[in-house]
Amino acid sequence: MRGAHDAVTMRIPVPDLRQWAQTVFMRVGVPREDAAIATHVLVDADLRGKHTHGVSRVPLYVGRLERGLIAPRPEIVFDNPKTPTMIRMDGGNGLGPVVAWKATERVTEGARAYGIAAVAVRHSNHCGAMHAYCLHAASQGLILLALTNSPPGIAPWGGRKAFLGTNPIAWGFPRGPRQAPLLIDLATSVVARGNIIQAARLNLPIPLGWAIGPDGVPTTDAEQALEGAVLPIAGAKGYALALAVEILSGLLSGAGIGPNVKNPYTDNTHASNVGHFFLAIDPETLMPEAELADRMNGLEQALRAVPPSSDGPVALPGDHSEMVFKENLQYGVPLDLHLLDELNALSERLDIGGLGP
Amino acid sequence: MRGAHDAVTMRIPVPDLRQWAQTVFMRVGVPREDAAIATHVLVDADLRGKHTHGVSRVPLYVGRLERGLIAPRPEIVFDNPKTPTMIRMDGGNGLGPVVAWKATERVTEGARAYGIAAVAVRHSNHCGAMHAYCLHAASQGLILLALTNSPPGIAPWGGRKAFLGTNPIAWGFPRGPRQAPLLIDLATSVVARGNIIQAARLNLPIPLGWAIGPDGVPTTDAEQALEGAVLPIAGAKGYALALAVEILSGLLSGAGIGPNVKNPYTDNTHASNVGHFFLAIDPETLMPEAELADRMNGLEQALRAVPPSSDGPVALPGDHSEMVFKENLQYGVPLDLHLLDELNALSERLDIGGLGP
Repeated sequence: MRGAHDAVTMRIPVPDLRQWAQTVFMRVGVPREDAAIATHVLVDADLRGKHTHGVSRVPLYVGRLERGLIAPRPEIVFDNPKTPTMIRMDGGNGLGPVVAWKATERVTEGARAYGIAAVAVRHSNHCGAMHAYCLHAASQGLILLALTNSPPGIAPWGGRKAFLGTNPIAWGFPRGPRQAPLLIDLATSVVARGNIIQAARLNLPIPLGWAIGPDGVPTTDAEQALEGAVLPIAGAKGYALALAVEILSGLLSGAGIGPNVKNPYTDNTHASNVGHFFLAIDPETLMPEAELADRMNGLEQALRAVPPSSDGPVALPGDHSEMVFKENLQYGVPLDLHLLDELNALSERLDIGGLGP
Repeated sequence: MRGAHDAVTMRIPVPDLRQWAQTVFMRVGVPREDAAIATHVLVDADLRGKHTHGVSRVPLYVGRLERGLIAPRPEIVFDNPKTPTMIRMDGGNGLGPVVAWKATERVTEGARAYGIAAVAVRHSNHCGAMHAYCLHAASQGLILLALTNSPPGIAPWGGRKAFLGTNPIAWGFPRGPRQAPLLIDLATSVVARGNIIQAARLNLPIPLGWAIGPDGVPTTDAEQALEGAVLPIAGAKGYALALAVEILSGLLSGAGIGPNVKNPYTDNTHASNVGHFFLAIDPETLMPEAELADRMNGLEQALRAVPPSSDGPVALPGDHSEMVFKENLQYGVPLDLHLLDELNALSERLDIGGLGP
């Protein structure tokens, strides 16, 4: 068995990967514009080295589109029953990235008009890596908090059965027109469940401390971990944060909560009913754009000037993924050969061109 | 040396403790109404067992009031340059609990009127335990996110010198008129700096894994830890969360950032210039109060029904502090004798009645 870092990979040029993903989505009935959104979100994750949230999810999404468990042409409904700043959205069981992207567009419009706005989204699906939405908003000068719930991953504190999702918290902060936004994106579990799914797919063990099996005992077996629970970050603190995300994304939106968010890998009869909560702030309501950029750059410089520890120099969130992004954009996205086989089996079944030589 | 749990304590009846703190604050020039607010916030922390954020802070606050480093009658200024939903507040260097309480009142008014509102606060001071503000807002049916920065506590990832505060994140969620709100309140450091200050005061060692000394090496010496850095929760993830809190509380508000937030224990010449960021949401913009209460109770019941681990049964955030609250309200707040000596020395100096028999 190879370790995860020894996996043999092949670099796929980015235009080829985009073309492929877009063609796949359109082949199963997704309109061109929506296929482009889903492709953008997934390929951007691969570009930043987050392969667990990249095109590795395409077979899952396609399988559920084909089974009628995700709507290719969702009827998306927004309403603001009380105030234009607090928006409810029914995602119509569309592709997660499409629903989440449209939620982002709507909430950023709200923030531009009113300074701050939030959208609570029900009837959505797995929406990829949250940083994509933060990047989209922050590139327009807006701060975004992006939250989503997900199928049970984390056991409640004192419990042995997964209940809460691995509920990520993502923030995007603009740094002015000439600099990429600062992106923060983290699961409230020790690892994203995608890493365990990836390990299970590659038949690799997982480190002790990531998860417990269904018996509540720590395990290194990825399959057992998927049946058990991932551990929250920082013990009870991570549990509390995951709970806050569940309340905001699931409970306030009217989406599924806990086990009522269906696992798309194991439940082949129900829609997932994932919920999201996005909150956008226009920082120009507090200070001019140039002052914000100055202060953000000043903070970055001050952080980078802190004397290094043995693990130094000082890093900012996103440093690594920005470096990987540039490399992958130039040389292509490295996909492991197991995944490539899976994607090409899908290509063959859908009768479209495959990936790679 | 005694361990922390062996500290000899004496229970002080709550009315006595409140009367004492209020008298102290008024004695050094704080108006009655503001003294009552500061007293409420500090004693509520003691009631919930968070003694590091309780009346143990009174001597610090008083010392700075006396030295002119905190304004007893602050000139507080609100403005909304662009929109009524995004509020700027200059705390006028008032007592932190007074400034934060008034920020909470203003932002909850905003959320009631517009569905959602935020306030960015500059020129404030240490404001006690954040849950107090969440409780205040949630008791009125509003969700509150309460953030504050604080003097350097956490080193940036890859650095060896404290830069970011231990920057807590607190959420309050209403559970309908008949139930106490759900309160989440956690430092983004492994421990609140208050615990290390407390250990240093009691001359107790701290556990390995809480902090590094000024040389970047892990330490069990509380004094060394105060000169070094507290470790963030969950490694780089906690660092990222602390950074988000610093940006929202310090950078957006125009308050101090990093080392420009002055440590009130060691800097006797500058105002602290702490920043806060409070965000309130009216959940009735999304669903009726009764439905929210039903959903919150349903979530709680479902969580508590999860089979217990060996650390079970399942707990919700705030369970422990709610139990301690009821006990302390009935029997009095247990204060350790070292602290009681310190508070009574202050009473004597201010020529007011002391605490205890």
